[in-house]
Amino acid sequence: MAETIVKIDLSKSAYENEQVHNRWHPDIPMAATVKPGDDFILECYDWTGGQIKNDDDASDIRDVDLSQVHFLSGPVGVEGAQPGDLLEVDILDIGTFEESNWGFNGLFSLNNGGGFLTDHYPDAQKTIWDFNGIMTKSRHIPGVEFAGLLHPGLIGCLPSKEMLKEWNEREKALYDTEPDRVPALATLPYAETAHMGQMKPDAAKEAAKEGARTVPPREHGGNCDIKDLTKGSKIYFPVYVDGAGLSVGDLHFSQGDGEITFCGAIEMAGWIHLRVNLIKDGMNKYAIKNPIFKPSPLTPRYDDYVVFEGISVDEEGKQHYLDVNVAYKQACLNAIEYMKKFGYTGEQVYSLLGTVPTQAHISGIVDIPNASATLWMPTGVYDFDINPNAEGPTKQVDESVKVPIAPDEK
Amino acid sequence: MAETIVKIDLSKSAYENEQVHNRWHPDIPMAATVKPGDDFILECYDWTGGQIKNDDDASDIRDVDLSQVHFLSGPVGVEGAQPGDLLEVDILDIGTFEESNWGFNGLFSLNNGGGFLTDHYPDAQKTIWDFNGIMTKSRHIPGVEFAGLLHPGLIGCLPSKEMLKEWNEREKALYDTEPDRVPALATLPYAETAHMGQMKPDAAKEAAKEGARTVPPREHGGNCDIKDLTKGSKIYFPVYVDGAGLSVGDLHFSQGDGEITFCGAIEMAGWIHLRVNLIKDGMNKYAIKNPIFKPSPLTPRYDDYVVFEGISVDEEGKQHYLDVNVAYKQACLNAIEYMKKFGYTGEQVYSLLGTVPTQAHISGIVDIPNASATLWMPTGVYDFDINPNAEGPTKQVDESVKVPIAPDEK
Amino acid sequence: MAETIVKIDLSKSAYENEQVHNRWHPDIPMAATVKPGDDFILECYDWTGGQIKNDDDASDIRDVDLSQVHFLSGPVGVEGAQPGDLLEVDILDIGTFEESNWGFNGLFSLNNGGGFLTDHYPDAQKTIWDFNGIMTKSRHIPGVEFAGLLHPGLIGCLPSKEMLKEWNEREKALYDTEPDRVPALATLPYAETAHMGQMKPDAAKEAAKEGARTVPPREHGGNCDIKDLTKGSKIYFPVYVDGAGLSVGDLHFSQGDGEITFCGAIEMAGWIHLRVNLIKDGMNKYAIKNPIFKPSPLTPRYDDYVVFEGISVDEEGKQHYLDVNVAYKQACLNAIEYMKKFGYTGEQVYSLLGTVPTQAHISGIVDIPNASATLWMPTGVYDFDINPNAEGPTKQVDESVKVPIAPDEK
Amino acid sequence: MAETIVKIDLSKSAYENEQVHNRWHPDIPMAATVKPGDDFILECYDWTGGQIKNDDDASDIRDVDLSQVHFLSGPVGVEGAQPGDLLEVDILDIGTFEESNWGFNGLFSLNNGGGFLTDHYPDAQKTIWDFNGIMTKSRHIPGVEFAGLLHPGLIGCLPSKEMLKEWNEREKALYDTEPDRVPALATLPYAETAHMGQMKPDAAKEAAKEGARTVPPREHGGNCDIKDLTKGSKIYFPVYVDGAGLSVGDLHFSQGDGEITFCGAIEMAGWIHLRVNLIKDGMNKYAIKNPIFKPSPLTPRYDDYVVFEGISVDEEGKQHYLDVNVAYKQACLNAIEYMKKFGYTGEQVYSLLGTVPTQAHISGIVDIPNASATLWMPTGVYDFDINPNAEGPTKQVDESVKVPIAPDEK
Repeated sequence: MAETIVKIDLSKSAYENEQVHNRWHPDIPMAATVKPGDDFILECYDWTGGQIKNDDDASDIRDVDLSQVHFLSGPVGVEGAQPGDLLEVDILDIGTFEESNWGFNGLFSLNNGGGFLTDHYPDAQKTIWDFNGIMTKSRHIPGVEFAGLLHPGLIGCLPSKEMLKEWNEREKALYDTEPDRVPALATLPYAETAHMGQMKPDAAKEAAKEGARTVPPREHGGNCDIKDLTKGSKIYFPVYVDGAGLSVGDLHFSQGDGEITFCGAIEMAGWIHLRVNLIKDGMNKYAIKNPIFKPSPLTPRYDDYVVFEGISVDEEGKQHYLDVNVAYKQACLNAIEYMKKFGYTGEQVYSLLGTVPTQAHISGIVDIPNASATLWMPTGVYDFDINPNAEGPTKQVDESVKVPIAPDEK
Repeated sequence: MAETIVKIDLSKSAYENEQVHNRWHPDIPMAATVKPGDDFILECYDWTGGQIKNDDDASDIRDVDLSQVHFLSGPVGVEGAQPGDLLEVDILDIGTFEESNWGFNGLFSLNNGGGFLTDHYPDAQKTIWDFNGIMTKSRHIPGVEFAGLLHPGLIGCLPSKEMLKEWNEREKALYDTEPDRVPALATLPYAETAHMGQMKPDAAKEAAKEGARTVPPREHGGNCDIKDLTKGSKIYFPVYVDGAGLSVGDLHFSQGDGEITFCGAIEMAGWIHLRVNLIKDGMNKYAIKNPIFKPSPLTPRYDDYVVFEGISVDEEGKQHYLDVNVAYKQACLNAIEYMKKFGYTGEQVYSLLGTVPTQAHISGIVDIPNASATLWMPTGVYDFDINPNAEGPTKQVDESVKVPIAPDEK
Repeated sequence: MAETIVKIDLSKSAYENEQVHNRWHPDIPMAATVKPGDDFILECYDWTGGQIKNDDDASDIRDVDLSQVHFLSGPVGVEGAQPGDLLEVDILDIGTFEESNWGFNGLFSLNNGGGFLTDHYPDAQKTIWDFNGIMTKSRHIPGVEFAGLLHPGLIGCLPSKEMLKEWNEREKALYDTEPDRVPALATLPYAETAHMGQMKPDAAKEAAKEGARTVPPREHGGNCDIKDLTKGSKIYFPVYVDGAGLSVGDLHFSQGDGEITFCGAIEMAGWIHLRVNLIKDGMNKYAIKNPIFKPSPLTPRYDDYVVFEGISVDEEGKQHYLDVNVAYKQACLNAIEYMKKFGYTGEQVYSLLGTVPTQAHISGIVDIPNASATLWMPTGVYDFDINPNAEGPTKQVDESVKVPIAPDEK
Repeated sequence: MAETIVKIDLSKSAYENEQVHNRWHPDIPMAATVKPGDDFILECYDWTGGQIKNDDDASDIRDVDLSQVHFLSGPVGVEGAQPGDLLEVDILDIGTFEESNWGFNGLFSLNNGGGFLTDHYPDAQKTIWDFNGIMTKSRHIPGVEFAGLLHPGLIGCLPSKEMLKEWNEREKALYDTEPDRVPALATLPYAETAHMGQMKPDAAKEAAKEGARTVPPREHGGNCDIKDLTKGSKIYFPVYVDGAGLSVGDLHFSQGDGEITFCGAIEMAGWIHLRVNLIKDGMNKYAIKNPIFKPSPLTPRYDDYVVFEGISVDEEGKQHYLDVNVAYKQACLNAIEYMKKFGYTGEQVYSLLGTVPTQAHISGIVDIPNASATLWMPTGVYDFDINPNAEGPTKQVDESVKVPIAPDEK
């Protein structure tokens, strides 16, 4: 069995673990070092570091401290890795802890992050998902059980000083265009809740002021939330610093394309088993700017779908110019209205769109002025038939089951 | 064999065929009428009505008259169809004509429509694709042959008067925000080149002034360019007028998600075999606004991919807010640079992105400020291995083969 | 469009067509000649040469003259092909004739060929299948419609004199072990109904005495009835004579693994579009004795199954030693009894096992004394749900629909 | 986390564990009891109970005591289960032990069980497979790594007294036809090495004389070695005794169809996570004799194949009558000769046929006198390209790597 090179203790704060960090900075020391060809295991906190509980009260979602996220395990140094190389990472396996065999999906309050449909669903809510082997179901959403597509929401290598500077500058420039916006346009460095791994206190204090937040995906990968990076997949990451410094966190048991609920997928604590190799000078050899990857041969085969379309005319009837975001939002709203006909609440379907392995395709992006986007809902995850027929839908699910909600306190 | 209820003659102008139209208007008379349960065949011009030739000169692409497109076959009236119904359409087959066994892909000039990457590739260009049974390859792009995923780029029912008014108003409002833009923000009604099917001349003249252009996808489906509407799929269309009035055109032999080249897919003339049924009051029963569909059990199985990612930071390094269009554009540019390492020109890869069955996924859409989008390039369509390896890529294709180009005349 | 190098006229007897033959012999002249890299089209009679009609009377199945089968189109000579080469054949497309857009499936009488379950279903019966584009359904079997998996049941190159001699000797030796058996153990040469293509009368008369019958698959491929040799697949055939001499026939619209009904699949007349290339000395390079092939990227995706198992204990309870035939027969009988619970007759299910794309797997072949075989029934071809559930099955199909039957005349 | 209701200690003999048994008998007491709807975990010895070691010496394969196999965990009683019911079993997960993260594949000596190709490969040999997360590779076979398709080789419910009697009688009758055969035609009851679980010594002694051996698959399932019963699949077992009595063992990390090496798959110790439900009177409702099952949505997607065919003419050129065993044996031998061209030894390919997820299809079973069978070799499990091409194969693997062999002692 591969060695576990980063261990965690769920009963202790992530801040006490020196092999964990929650900001990106080139000076964070390697938490462990491996050789090309090695395989190893990293244990990971859930992205919030344990702020969310397995109960029926959504106030923890409402009150979550988002400045703490995401807690990452690493960085792992790889001997011989140099800037310009590609780090080939095989995701060999991902699993849960026996003592924490569940996950959560949350809708953030409009005042604390929000989500893709936050103007329609502004209150904090959560659903809890139990894991039974490879399968999961939720006591808050009846009629659905499916095989997980476990993957890390967040994975990537440490940025160089130059790259970090670039990130901070461009995000600050955006932020400054509307600094009072709620939710904010970007998450800027915030030293108070930073965890800089094994950095010495003084250096950490300085670095924390410029350490990049972990929320967005960036050139190095990062929080790309690509549901397809599951066990069996192979990813090629750009290397920016000596030793690469690979960090991982934000494990998901399953996610729909887009992770539209923001909190997000089925979030979980767990472990990930990786193998690393190097392609020397690979960034140049393959003209790589962002990571590339190969999908896994082992993914749940929910190949029958009902597909919903949206175009870039918004809910108010306003025409937007080839805007995929608007189009996909309409596809999501269309799917929600359709599924409500079977007895679900809108909140339940919204949570399903974040958790079951839906696909989000950009179908047409040039037919002015309308983009078209499609949401692919797998039929095989439901206990009943969601296909349309001449008779029309009937109520299929127990309408007494509700999603816990926690309205903002006034 | 099913009856062919709309026939065309490729040697004659589409304007001479009264069972063809190129604008959307509720008053266009039915070109033919069928009963629920019937299956039938429609022959279709290519979307330009024959403006593009099977040769090595791209000037026809440069000089195409876009005000003529798209030539649609229909409308087909369905007995008993009423507003509020869903029209269930089985796509039973799609084929080519023996005398026209080829298709084209074009990059429009920046001054005449452009495409998704028009700022990088501003000149008119074209590639010709020969069909050999279910397979296609191009004399302008070496090293690639694949099975077609034939589908109609454009399909849908006639709008009601109210819907037509809504379309015209919202698109005009967008257009007016920047009326001098090149390319235009929207294509407004344009009477001069309108073809109103069997309408009487005077009525046609009036209707042409308000007939909606066919370029964008809209609530009724229309030019949705969804590559997955292939033979074996089943689509449910909203009905807005008595008799439904189903029209089809813009047949594609294959297309990548997004149809980023605008002209667009592998465009072809051909025929389509359909079967129709009704779900009475189906729009209300299933809360339908846009069409929904079921994918086909029969689609080419190119299941191994190299996947490229992009984030919403543009080529100039500017940060955009959760903008999927910017993110997907970066994924496209990343794919182009990668594929050039095997010997392709940028233009060849751009054309490949429009023609091979690539997938475009919205992967993350909430991780402020960066959206992440992924472009899935199927490996099985190439004669050689496009996967990365430690040695790096080698030139694999004959670099003397070029795509015909036709720069704008000064 | 590719040239049609073998044409047929369905209104005329296959015996009048000199580009057709129904025996294997090295001296049959090439019906046409092509070059490596060429693609071309062959038209083909159905395997019986038109003996079966599109009606509701099974007497034509009962009275079929099996000494005439199979009528093959070819042989096609390939320039440069020599014994020891591999002939690479791309199946580019397969289609039907507009005037013959249907097929048949038959159960032969025990006294005239029989089938895999002939001791349970001894009477001649037939089902007629209508083709609607890529889909088919039968007026004799309710509740089922599916996409075809078109393929040639019979394809291969001419044998050498030595190979022909070997075939005749080994089959005669088997036949002689029980010469009076009904059905016979093997079909030996039979001159009376032989059609030797373009051979001159005297030579044909001699050759017909030793021309191998076309019923069995042999080293060259032949009547292998592999349902997966569909459009998009690529086959590598051993070459035994100069010019190879590729012949094709017995086209099927669809077939289940094993073709257990003998007559057999959904049998049809039609055309096949092929491309040929050579691997010089390929038999030696790859140690090839029987053809090898690559499946198509384009096959119907009926990926959800109910799977039935059988073991090598027969219906009488007798134990056989690792006998896959006995095990698979039990799996078939198990499937029939299960499906009858939904209202089908045994004859209907037997016909379904020969026509829908069932899979037959050898699951275990070493666990003495029982082999285990599995029959994979695709659920997606039925209009209703065939999965087991706690309530049990209900009648789903119209039990008044029957399969035409024609008992033997006394 | 589900409760582990059967625990094992790999450092102790399986005979010391009262929740384990190695014979089938209705009187074996339930090792544990669960309710319908429960999920639970069973730990399992490898099928030999630890006789095979992780080393490079095949003498343990040669000297294995086959009278001991298979060690099964259970029987598990299910409350309310009665004869005639169907026991629905969800396989929720399967895993390995951290201290035993490897498996073995063996070729038995002709004198001790043999295998499907034992006349060609008569000596005992073994290959060891290391598990890295979901992936496996062997130090004895270069060039291959693939995702496991974990499944129980052996699973089923206790037989009734009547069924046990029937098994013993029919197998004895076969055995008696050739009692001196090597290998034997069947494995008859053998008291000496029987392990009867929690039976009291005296009763156990009596029952052991008639307890059925576990080698063959039978009506109850048993050692069916169906590689597709992997995590995510759902099986419906006949119930013959009150409480059902479900037992499981013989876990495999991966197997090819047919398990032609007999020892067999990649054999491993491990655990299995199950959920049970009842369909009351289900045997009658669905006419069930043998188990039926639904495959998993989660199986490795190695969908590209090179396919080898065999017909029922044996290696000596003798014609057999529609014999699938002979046909499939030829397909196996054809595959071995082909793969040897890339540098493998015959033994290595033989082992690959038992371990990688090859498919074995019965393609044609009625075309007298030749059955045709196909062996589907997945290309994606190899580090190199196994497809044929015009240049021919080159040596791809390190020919110094050999499979440990242990010839019989004289």
